[in-house]
Amino acid sequence: MLIRQLYDHDTFSFSYLLADLQTKTAMIIDPVKERLSLYLQLLEEFELSLHYAIDTHLHADHITGMGALREATSCKTLVGQSSKMDCADEQFADNDIIHCGNIILRALYTPGHTNDSYSFYLEENNGMPPCVFTGDTLFIRGTGRTDFMGGSSEDLYNSLFSQLLTLPDHTIVYPGHDYKGMNQSTIGEEKQHNPRLQVKNWQELAAIMDGLNLANPKKFTVAISANAKCGEVP
Amino acid sequence: MLIRQLYDHDTFSFSYLLADLQTKTAMIIDPVKERLSLYLQLLEEFELSLHYAIDTHLHADHITGMGALREATSCKTLVGQSSKMDCADEQFADNDIIHCGNIILRALYTPGHTNDSYSFYLEENNGMPPCVFTGDTLFIRGTGRTDFMGGSSEDLYNSLFSQLLTLPDHTIVYPGHDYKGMNQSTIGEEKQHNPRLQVKNWQELAAIMDGLNLANPKKFTVAISANAKCGEVP
Repeated sequence: MLIRQLYDHDTFSFSYLLADLQTKTAMIIDPVKERLSLYLQLLEEFELSLHYAIDTHLHADHITGMGALREATSCKTLVGQSSKMDCADEQFADNDIIHCGNIILRALYTPGHTNDSYSFYLEENNGMPPCVFTGDTLFIRGTGRTDFMGGSSEDLYNSLFSQLLTLPDHTIVYPGHDYKGMNQSTIGEEKQHNPRLQVKNWQELAAIMDGLNLANPKKFTVAISANAKCGEVP
Repeated sequence: MLIRQLYDHDTFSFSYLLADLQTKTAMIIDPVKERLSLYLQLLEEFELSLHYAIDTHLHADHITGMGALREATSCKTLVGQSSKMDCADEQFADNDIIHCGNIILRALYTPGHTNDSYSFYLEENNGMPPCVFTGDTLFIRGTGRTDFMGGSSEDLYNSLFSQLLTLPDHTIVYPGHDYKGMNQSTIGEEKQHNPRLQVKNWQELAAIMDGLNLANPKKFTVAISANAKCGEVP
């Protein structure tokens, strides 16, 4: 079992290559279109067959590499059933299991950043601690924003407290972005030290989120329309 | 035992926080001055006492955070005995052991990028695979340059093939920089897939290195003079 965290410097985005080295099958979570050659290089070096390209949600800050990977490798593209991405081959719902070789990934519906946000949980395996790929729902010492695309601070609060924070404390958190220089954490650590998880109710979280006043991401318009077509730029 | 890879986006540099969570003692390898507040935040969150700030070599591309950490935490600053950094509290030599709580780090003299470059090896521990912090000697699918500060392709070849590549294949490689979007590898993987490790002798490596024609790093002049004083900018 191989997990590789890959970084797109231009958009501060993490993608994840997950591979079962026995069956030589792999999936990539949240691929970035401009990093296609890196993904293909790693697939070739590890002699992997890519089964799935998966997005945690319809991204507004980078163009998904799902379509480009499908074209290059014939993999299937997967998105959550709440995503408006008709281009995808298959959809998953809350608690669905995604199999890839011996990798068993559980989809968790975690709306809040957007109304189509999912996280993915990988159980403890062969001494490797459990992991959760949190997309833009939970960042290290932060969270995704909630001010567009069906975002909701109440949903985010529920996704964090009723879904992600109920995972074992030693679960490794692999986020969708990093802006601060940290690339890994644990659920226990975030519970204790993430400022947005020190709130008592969703209204307190909403007060934090409402005060952020963030500008739209640089690629906002082009990303949303392209990503609805799995990354095809008109 | 905790290992955290920390990233400075401005200079593409990795620093490493290593902590023994039993004795609550820590060291930081290759701190970047501008990231001081992140290091102090993590030390406080984990309730760690910083024993050492260590540089793998005198950096030419960023200003070391060793001095700032010493001032903020009263830690000791450590450099290799080949480093011209009189400001440091202690020096280590090839094969010296650096103790910090239950962390046992072995210094490996790996000149080539500069003539004062060291790597640090951490043995397998409690099911955690061995790790090597390679500074600018070995990058993922690359190496540091060899065209200034006592750099030498012949030295680099020897450091790579006679030191680093003799470590167990499953040793995790933690490099000093990443420009390509990869933050972790293994010795076995680099042996197989790093283009600069496919050479038969130092002359072949020198031919690659001589063809690079790299510009000096942006902070070259200020970094070298500041780093000779542990990061004090005149």
